Amino acid sequence: MSYQYLTNIPMEEARSKYLKALQERGLNYKVEKVFSVDALDRVTAEAVYAKISTPHYNACAMDGVALDSTLTFGASERAPVQIKDADFTWVNTGDPLPEGYDAVVMVEDVIQDEGHITLYSAAVPWENIRQIGEDISAGDMVVPSYTVITPAIIGAFLAAGVLQVNVITRPLVGIIPTGDELVPLTDEPQPGQIIEFNSGIFSAMLTQWGCAAKRYPIAKDNQSTIEAALRKAVEECDAVILMAGSSAGRKDFAVSAMGSVGEVIVHGIAIKPGKPAILALAENSAGSSVVPVLGLPGYPVAGMLVMEHFFHLVMERLTGRISKNIEFREVEISRRLTSSLKYHEFIRATLGKVGGKVVAVPLNRGAGVVSSMVKADGIIQVPQNVEGYEQGDKIQVQMLRGLEEIESALVITGSHDPLLDEIADIMRRESPGSQVASSHVGSMGGILAIKRGEAHLGGIHLLDEASGEYNIPYLRRFFPDGGVALVECVQRTQGLMVRAGNPLGIKSLSDLVRARYVNRQKGSGTRILIDYLTKQKNIDPATINGYNREEYTHSAVAASIAAGSADAGLGIFSAAKAFGLGFIPIYEEQYDLLVQQDALSSVMVEKLLDILRGEEFSRRLKQLGGYTLDHPGEMRLWN
Amino acid sequence: MSYQYLTNIPMEEARSKYLKALQERGLNYKVEKVFSVDALDRVTAEAVYAKISTPHYNACAMDGVALDSTLTFGASERAPVQIKDADFTWVNTGDPLPEGYDAVVMVEDVIQDEGHITLYSAAVPWENIRQIGEDISAGDMVVPSYTVITPAIIGAFLAAGVLQVNVITRPLVGIIPTGDELVPLTDEPQPGQIIEFNSGIFSAMLTQWGCAAKRYPIAKDNQSTIEAALRKAVEECDAVILMAGSSAGRKDFAVSAMGSVGEVIVHGIAIKPGKPAILALAENSAGSSVVPVLGLPGYPVAGMLVMEHFFHLVMERLTGRISKNIEFREVEISRRLTSSLKYHEFIRATLGKVGGKVVAVPLNRGAGVVSSMVKADGIIQVPQNVEGYEQGDKIQVQMLRGLEEIESALVITGSHDPLLDEIADIMRRESPGSQVASSHVGSMGGILAIKRGEAHLGGIHLLDEASGEYNIPYLRRFFPDGGVALVECVQRTQGLMVRAGNPLGIKSLSDLVRARYVNRQKGSGTRILIDYLTKQKNIDPATINGYNREEYTHSAVAASIAAGSADAGLGIFSAAKAFGLGFIPIYEEQYDLLVQQDALSSVMVEKLLDILRGEEFSRRLKQLGGYTLDHPGEMRLWN
Repeated sequence: MSYQYLTNIPMEEARSKYLKALQERGLNYKVEKVFSVDALDRVTAEAVYAKISTPHYNACAMDGVALDSTLTFGASERAPVQIKDADFTWVNTGDPLPEGYDAVVMVEDVIQDEGHITLYSAAVPWENIRQIGEDISAGDMVVPSYTVITPAIIGAFLAAGVLQVNVITRPLVGIIPTGDELVPLTDEPQPGQIIEFNSGIFSAMLTQWGCAAKRYPIAKDNQSTIEAALRKAVEECDAVILMAGSSAGRKDFAVSAMGSVGEVIVHGIAIKPGKPAILALAENSAGSSVVPVLGLPGYPVAGMLVMEHFFHLVMERLTGRISKNIEFREVEISRRLTSSLKYHEFIRATLGKVGGKVVAVPLNRGAGVVSSMVKADGIIQVPQNVEGYEQGDKIQVQMLRGLEEIESALVITGSHDPLLDEIADIMRRESPGSQVASSHVGSMGGILAIKRGEAHLGGIHLLDEASGEYNIPYLRRFFPDGGVALVECVQRTQGLMVRAGNPLGIKSLSDLVRARYVNRQKGSGTRILIDYLTKQKNIDPATINGYNREEYTHSAVAASIAAGSADAGLGIFSAAKAFGLGFIPIYEEQYDLLVQQDALSSVMVEKLLDILRGEEFSRRLKQLGGYTLDHPGEMRLWN
Repeated sequence: MSYQYLTNIPMEEARSKYLKALQERGLNYKVEKVFSVDALDRVTAEAVYAKISTPHYNACAMDGVALDSTLTFGASERAPVQIKDADFTWVNTGDPLPEGYDAVVMVEDVIQDEGHITLYSAAVPWENIRQIGEDISAGDMVVPSYTVITPAIIGAFLAAGVLQVNVITRPLVGIIPTGDELVPLTDEPQPGQIIEFNSGIFSAMLTQWGCAAKRYPIAKDNQSTIEAALRKAVEECDAVILMAGSSAGRKDFAVSAMGSVGEVIVHGIAIKPGKPAILALAENSAGSSVVPVLGLPGYPVAGMLVMEHFFHLVMERLTGRISKNIEFREVEISRRLTSSLKYHEFIRATLGKVGGKVVAVPLNRGAGVVSSMVKADGIIQVPQNVEGYEQGDKIQVQMLRGLEEIESALVITGSHDPLLDEIADIMRRESPGSQVASSHVGSMGGILAIKRGEAHLGGIHLLDEASGEYNIPYLRRFFPDGGVALVECVQRTQGLMVRAGNPLGIKSLSDLVRARYVNRQKGSGTRILIDYLTKQKNIDPATINGYNREEYTHSAVAASIAAGSADAGLGIFSAAKAFGLGFIPIYEEQYDLLVQQDALSSVMVEKLLDILRGEEFSRRLKQLGGYTLDHPGEMRLWN
């Protein structure tokens, strides 16, 4: 087994080293001529000058009569002036000004008689006339180089007789996925097969950046195949992305292939995720231009970050499209965040405005967790020489969404139930544009998030062992001074999810000793419930195989059972149903919403309470199954 | 002659009346299924749920050995544990976790020996394993309805086995230009012919809004033709834009055609420009859906504003794409602005950050001036019941560009010379992303703009009658306390531009009495020069035909002469050259740049001074002709 030892070059150094190498080799864009009507959002390759003036003739700007203004001089209410039919011409807006005339009088100001008209005020020379070139003169520069073409600019081009325009060619970027484990898009992958979806993400990013993406077939993991694919792409494209294996493992031939086809400038950057990135270049056989070649790590989040922070600048050079600076905002970080001194770390975060301040909550750092990129509102960057941040620190966050969108979002943090997603969907359908950001951290996580002012509300289902009562005892303990409201949501059935047909014949908790169990994380309501129930029944958790195997959602537990990697797990009916599992009801529990008192009167929370009480919610929950609706949306008194 | 009398409905009332009428008739979007890989920037028509989990199997997250963690319990530096070859399996990242194992130990922590491996620390159960559904579980809602699909969302769809997705169909919007005066795109229009460029602007706007635009041929101005075109478009499209004549003149058949094909909801809105807009609707013959029909005034700026403020909301309903709220910023208005109480007025403005504050400068209000839409950074809205604003008032401006872009722009206001456009272009090519906003208000306008703090710098060429000296006497008069610097730019030749071949044999100013003259506006350096020269030569301006006909730029004067609507005008050589005119040199003048002292050390101004001193500038001016470069970029001492 041999390993590629990577360097650990600081981010800025890697970037400038790479750009310098590309520029020395003459990195440049191509130019093409397109019709101006089709040029929306393209970038001018050079300054564009008007071919004709607009207006291109002296045009009447009103319906009325054109005349020689000197004939009207002295006209007033007391001394109106008559003008003979021979001395004026009726004109419409847009008509050319007839020869010898220098003014147009609006039709409303003209009194028409037999053989003449009467005017009660004098015309000012060149009044109501759009003079040649008033808007644009032939020869004027309409826009300079590197201008992104807008609808108004298209109008100006066409009005100025510029029917075609030289724009920067959209660079063609080849994407080569590599890896024996990869399979083309499918909805029925086998264990060990990884769906090749990264190229879908990267080609969409390239499209957003004004490039054209070309997706090559998956190349198998051997050097000659990868080299051949790379050579072909370098001939055909303006830049190439090679998606390498996800680590420096034994099957990673990307870097040697790149070194053989071109030149590796940087291999290994002090960033996390993304460390194994490769920044390389090659020349096509014509030697006509340098082709940037990027080696991306296999994990999607790592790949996206490397694209954004190392390839974007290259693409700017190739598209002439200078993007806005990355937008940063100062926000408060909700919890302690540690980071290695070895890397510049990028950590996805949700942002939410709760209690008047914007708070960042770090998300799962896993480089493979693509859903975290869907959820992320911003990215916290921890520089290489910084160990992290303390809770409450003010930090700069790179914004992935507009502040307005973030500030208006309803932040839900707590126990997960699919009903929360259904509420979010109903809300969007009934009030388009509304945003819900929800994180699943379990019931205790929700209580703490609301205490810390990170969320407007959260779902909780917490059984108090002493009283057997749900939720309220926890509120009394954690919010002795109030500040929160408890909104009734649903009663739901917790039960044992088992494999379809219940092959192990599990009937109750005591049968779990015969099964491979999969548990929920500590602090979740479901974990508290199973801990309570096993204690009640005198079952030692140590006798249950897999009791310490933890998942974060009901559906993740159900997925493990459905895939055969576990036999049983405690969860809700709708999750079992979604995966076609058996379900043995164990306990009826109260799932409620804990709401910040201050948020209670907000538009979004009021809307949510309306939805809870509405028919659509009840219809959808019936479809999910396993819920009883008593008085959803009603306040529960607790203090 | 008959007129369509219009109503004057307030803006908000017109908008809500129209939306209500459309909603009552069931305005709705259509849905289509597309491949997820092609779904970038489309809008989900419904909530999207995961089909498979990701990971869809328990996957090894590291290269190393998979084993049963219980075998490693108790391992430490002092008490390493040996594990037999039969009890573990070598795995790579992404491999399925072999049956019976519950942990992966990183290869770096494994000491390999003959027949066994040695570990110096215990493995934690489920360590280095990506469990089924860790990212997304089958059945999870990936995104709710009406979500704009991003690259990350495409990744999540593909990873979750969602290969196709229901999105909202891009509505097809038909555009029908009408008018006898309109001609298809050309660069050689005849007088009286108006190039039909509006449909190019509107189809680009629709593309930006997520619609597909269909441009119909120009319909002649008679009711049956327009009706037939409208009926066809209503059958074929989801919405129709009829571009009416620009006024309520005798040839305007749009409203009657709309009333005949469908129903006119509003005709005439209390906005300026845009008053004659028509908001209508129709049904296709299948009666399957209501088709919004918009009648746009013929002037491009009016049309764009009506599109933005009345059709955009309709398009939001048809695309499911809720746009961000229009962004407003508080800025200071640089001069008094009056507006009619009859209308809600939209006034284009440039915005610039000068001396620490953002200032709005209103642009030409002409509804036909498409270049003003290219230049505009923002739009000042003056509500119907407001008479206008006083200089220095803080007003809310609708932003057309980002604040960052505006704040970084170099604002040039003063006398126009094409060299300023060339400087802007050089600047963009040498420092991509840099912005120059220049307005042509003449030399005196430039001095006043800089005094008012509206501009960083401006071109001036002002002859002092008493001393015969250029510029400096004006600075002493207007800036007795300093605060500005004078930067030498060029010497340029002012002369009489005459028709090609000089058919009138004009040799000097005294010949102007035989010609139709076209002048520059008062306050421009060129006007001051001609006033001075005629006075010197005892020529009475009243004897010069057209002395009070005013244009705002050298090239507009040249354009008038080239088009034969005037015989002569004072201007610079490059303008005469661009239009192939004759040129009789009259005077050598000094064209300098007046710069705010505070701006002098800014990056942009320093860059500009570099350009003035550079070779590219000198090369381009040689090409334009008529300039002498002495010490461009040098400071001129004046106080």
